[in-house]
Amino acid sequence: MIRVIMHGCNGKMGQVISNLLKEDQEAEIVAGVDVSDHIQNEYPVFKNIAECDIEADVIIDFASVKAIEDLLNYSIEKQVPVVVCTTGLTEEQLAKIKKASEEVAVLRSANMSLGINMLMKLLQTAAQVLVPAGFDIEIVEKHHKLKLDAPSGTAIALADSINDSLDQRYDYQYDRSRELKRREKNEIGIQAVRGGTIVGEHEVIFAGIDEVIEFKHTAYTKAIFGKGAIQAAKFLAGKPAGFYDMSHVIEGNVQLNKT
Amino acid sequence: MIRVIMHGCNGKMGQVISNLLKEDQEAEIVAGVDVSDHIQNEYPVFKNIAECDIEADVIIDFASVKAIEDLLNYSIEKQVPVVVCTTGLTEEQLAKIKKASEEVAVLRSANMSLGINMLMKLLQTAAQVLVPAGFDIEIVEKHHKLKLDAPSGTAIALADSINDSLDQRYDYQYDRSRELKRREKNEIGIQAVRGGTIVGEHEVIFAGIDEVIEFKHTAYTKAIFGKGAIQAAKFLAGKPAGFYDMSHVIEGNVQLNKT
Amino acid sequence: MIRVIMHGCNGKMGQVISNLLKEDQEAEIVAGVDVSDHIQNEYPVFKNIAECDIEADVIIDFASVKAIEDLLNYSIEKQVPVVVCTTGLTEEQLAKIKKASEEVAVLRSANMSLGINMLMKLLQTAAQVLVPAGFDIEIVEKHHKLKLDAPSGTAIALADSINDSLDQRYDYQYDRSRELKRREKNEIGIQAVRGGTIVGEHEVIFAGIDEVIEFKHTAYTKAIFGKGAIQAAKFLAGKPAGFYDMSHVIEGNVQLNKT
Amino acid sequence: MIRVIMHGCNGKMGQVISNLLKEDQEAEIVAGVDVSDHIQNEYPVFKNIAECDIEADVIIDFASVKAIEDLLNYSIEKQVPVVVCTTGLTEEQLAKIKKASEEVAVLRSANMSLGINMLMKLLQTAAQVLVPAGFDIEIVEKHHKLKLDAPSGTAIALADSINDSLDQRYDYQYDRSRELKRREKNEIGIQAVRGGTIVGEHEVIFAGIDEVIEFKHTAYTKAIFGKGAIQAAKFLAGKPAGFYDMSHVIEGNVQLNKT
Repeated sequence: MIRVIMHGCNGKMGQVISNLLKEDQEAEIVAGVDVSDHIQNEYPVFKNIAECDIEADVIIDFASVKAIEDLLNYSIEKQVPVVVCTTGLTEEQLAKIKKASEEVAVLRSANMSLGINMLMKLLQTAAQVLVPAGFDIEIVEKHHKLKLDAPSGTAIALADSINDSLDQRYDYQYDRSRELKRREKNEIGIQAVRGGTIVGEHEVIFAGIDEVIEFKHTAYTKAIFGKGAIQAAKFLAGKPAGFYDMSHVIEGNVQLNKT
Repeated sequence: MIRVIMHGCNGKMGQVISNLLKEDQEAEIVAGVDVSDHIQNEYPVFKNIAECDIEADVIIDFASVKAIEDLLNYSIEKQVPVVVCTTGLTEEQLAKIKKASEEVAVLRSANMSLGINMLMKLLQTAAQVLVPAGFDIEIVEKHHKLKLDAPSGTAIALADSINDSLDQRYDYQYDRSRELKRREKNEIGIQAVRGGTIVGEHEVIFAGIDEVIEFKHTAYTKAIFGKGAIQAAKFLAGKPAGFYDMSHVIEGNVQLNKT
Repeated sequence: MIRVIMHGCNGKMGQVISNLLKEDQEAEIVAGVDVSDHIQNEYPVFKNIAECDIEADVIIDFASVKAIEDLLNYSIEKQVPVVVCTTGLTEEQLAKIKKASEEVAVLRSANMSLGINMLMKLLQTAAQVLVPAGFDIEIVEKHHKLKLDAPSGTAIALADSINDSLDQRYDYQYDRSRELKRREKNEIGIQAVRGGTIVGEHEVIFAGIDEVIEFKHTAYTKAIFGKGAIQAAKFLAGKPAGFYDMSHVIEGNVQLNKT
Repeated sequence: MIRVIMHGCNGKMGQVISNLLKEDQEAEIVAGVDVSDHIQNEYPVFKNIAECDIEADVIIDFASVKAIEDLLNYSIEKQVPVVVCTTGLTEEQLAKIKKASEEVAVLRSANMSLGINMLMKLLQTAAQVLVPAGFDIEIVEKHHKLKLDAPSGTAIALADSINDSLDQRYDYQYDRSRELKRREKNEIGIQAVRGGTIVGEHEVIFAGIDEVIEFKHTAYTKAIFGKGAIQAAKFLAGKPAGFYDMSHVIEGNVQLNKT
């Protein structure tokens, strides 16, 4: 059984992960850390990770960015790998994470969904095969009516991932209504749909001559990010020092399956 | 058997309709009209409709706008109803068509596809039910990479049709990337995707709380516009003078089916 | 403010409705009824509806079938309309409901989602227009991996609704792999997909010559059935005795919007 | 310029390829072979390939199976690689093709679409990542109303391809309506939709917890098989003796793009 410290256990994602791990057969939470104590958990909870004296194999972090330094110090000192899911980190904090990864295993990804990360990988192969064959690439994403930014960070990440695999950088086109003109070859159209409570839908379209290939990811709840964090934690436990991201988790799964 | 004069028989759509009617059991072409004579047809072809001396029940027009006056004169004089599918008509020519409809049955529609026209009708009912229930409306359309305009005329027509059924006029939103802000309630997002040889796809999305309803039309070839013209011709043959559009064809089918 | 008695307030759907009505500006719960008292609500809760002495405009029922008789007696005696959402009623109980509707307004529907019920209505018009034009009808539904029955009751209800609008009854085809043969004209294929935690997706496909029209409903959570019950309750408050279903709610909304 | 001999040039696919190559900048047809001579081509046409005295770099074969032996003899003797697209080959003929590939480059694939073959490859990676993460796999395919077999050969090929990447063989489930029971973990549901003139649509669904990933291929015309044959021919010209299939073409493109 992989022993997990849930850093930020009383936040929304901390509780999602707590619930998911209650029925997990490979991993369990042995301790939590949270400044707030308004929730009753089945495991002991510490105000600060520095106070935690329970042995563990991996830490999942969904806490505030403020706690990041104590977290990294603890991780290095006790040699417990850490999955950093906190968002809104400064460049300086990111540099500290990279530095820490020289002494302990650290995993960090822009998007924690295994599905989205796997798609990024597959889209690179698809682009390498289909772009030389004349296919055009377009992305449509759909989110709830309250989302402020458009297109979504994940849509941009998908486009960036495709771009990384191409010889020549493609521009992103967000609005085709402004000019009366043909589509440019070297562009990726990215369209944003907003409405209702749609959690998140991303569709990447490769349109060729008489043929269309689509890759689509649909999220039904935000729990999928918790699920991804758990998969990352299981992967990271026992790994040597180094900087990892979700693509390593995916490759790990593929390797495991092959043997 | 309904006897059809194919006006503009040697153009692309004229030939599509000629082929479709070869195997039709309710209608047949008895004469064609075309300035060009490079194609061999199974029916007699006249240079100008004024020369045509063959009796018919209805005319389908896919010819050049230049021929519109001769066409209307003939239609009135011989009392043969006419389905006008020619595009690019001036306001003046449209006025003449309206005038002609006082003396003979004339049918004209922005889009000749029965499917699209039926959707326009259904979307009005959907909007009346779903908008008061808090649903947001968005449209995504997909066309080939050579299309110059965006969004498509049909996407606008679908949005206009929905707007006609609402108490308050909704604005159209083509680009959400320019401002960091929440979706406005009174807007319809219209997004255009361009790529490959996609003939035409229109998707209208009603997004509510935990629920999404979608209406989608996919065209595989341009032949569907010829098919719509034939359906219109069958409907129009024998009708009294008046101005008709595809919504009358749809209502006619519904009525027929009810009796 | 419409005053609601929530019958079965401590069940899953009772709580969903309680939460939805907390922020509603047209309706509020003034009393609950439930044999269980493990939940703390903001309104008084009675063990049995007979004990309830609080005035109300409408009752929403998501309780056990066992309580149905007390519910109907109360509804008739106090002249409070009732939305019956309980499932698994016997023929005898259904007959009692019909009988009660002679004295008080009663609403009952197989599926409480406004969206699904609206689709049923639109599909009838679509079938009347598209079937004579040679379109074939197929249905694909998707649900979670634990669902025992296939196809879903809602898929059958959608097909039945289409059938009610056709001159000739169409058969349902669940498996095309058994015989090597062409599709029959007079059939509706219904295919069931099962996997993961998909809440419920229904897609009705009209496939014609070079043209496909699709109608799709996606449920993200079961809360949509609570939402439908609330819409039904708002419609039913103040209505005269009679038997109603969700199609009346839809027509009511369309009428309201027209005036 | 790659010089192509079009074997079976006056058949439907032969003409599709002739038209596609008219505007190609890398390959051109220098000779055709066909028993029928009812079509006027821009290149010389021979009754039998044995008579062809024009030098070429590769042969594309869409002729009758009857001509397969002469084709292979010519290919070996003149050392011209051949793309065999003929269908309905006997086991004996397939053995001869394999034998020929010891002396000259021969390419043969069950499905000539580059898109479908690329999907097969990507689905293997997807399955290796997603199946251990608890995702279920389902396939929905859609074809025209005249198609006799269900599910399609391509749907089976996609499922087989996934199966090849799994530790344990999954069964195929074509009909869930027969038994009232939960989905089995080790199965792939394959559903066939039939209607109108749908050319071919294949959708592979990975359904997990609160997350769905879909891969979809849509064919708009049969020309895509001609396009695939041309891509294969360009790849095969100049290759050493050996047996190739479309997966080599895909890998070749990926390699090319990397350098």
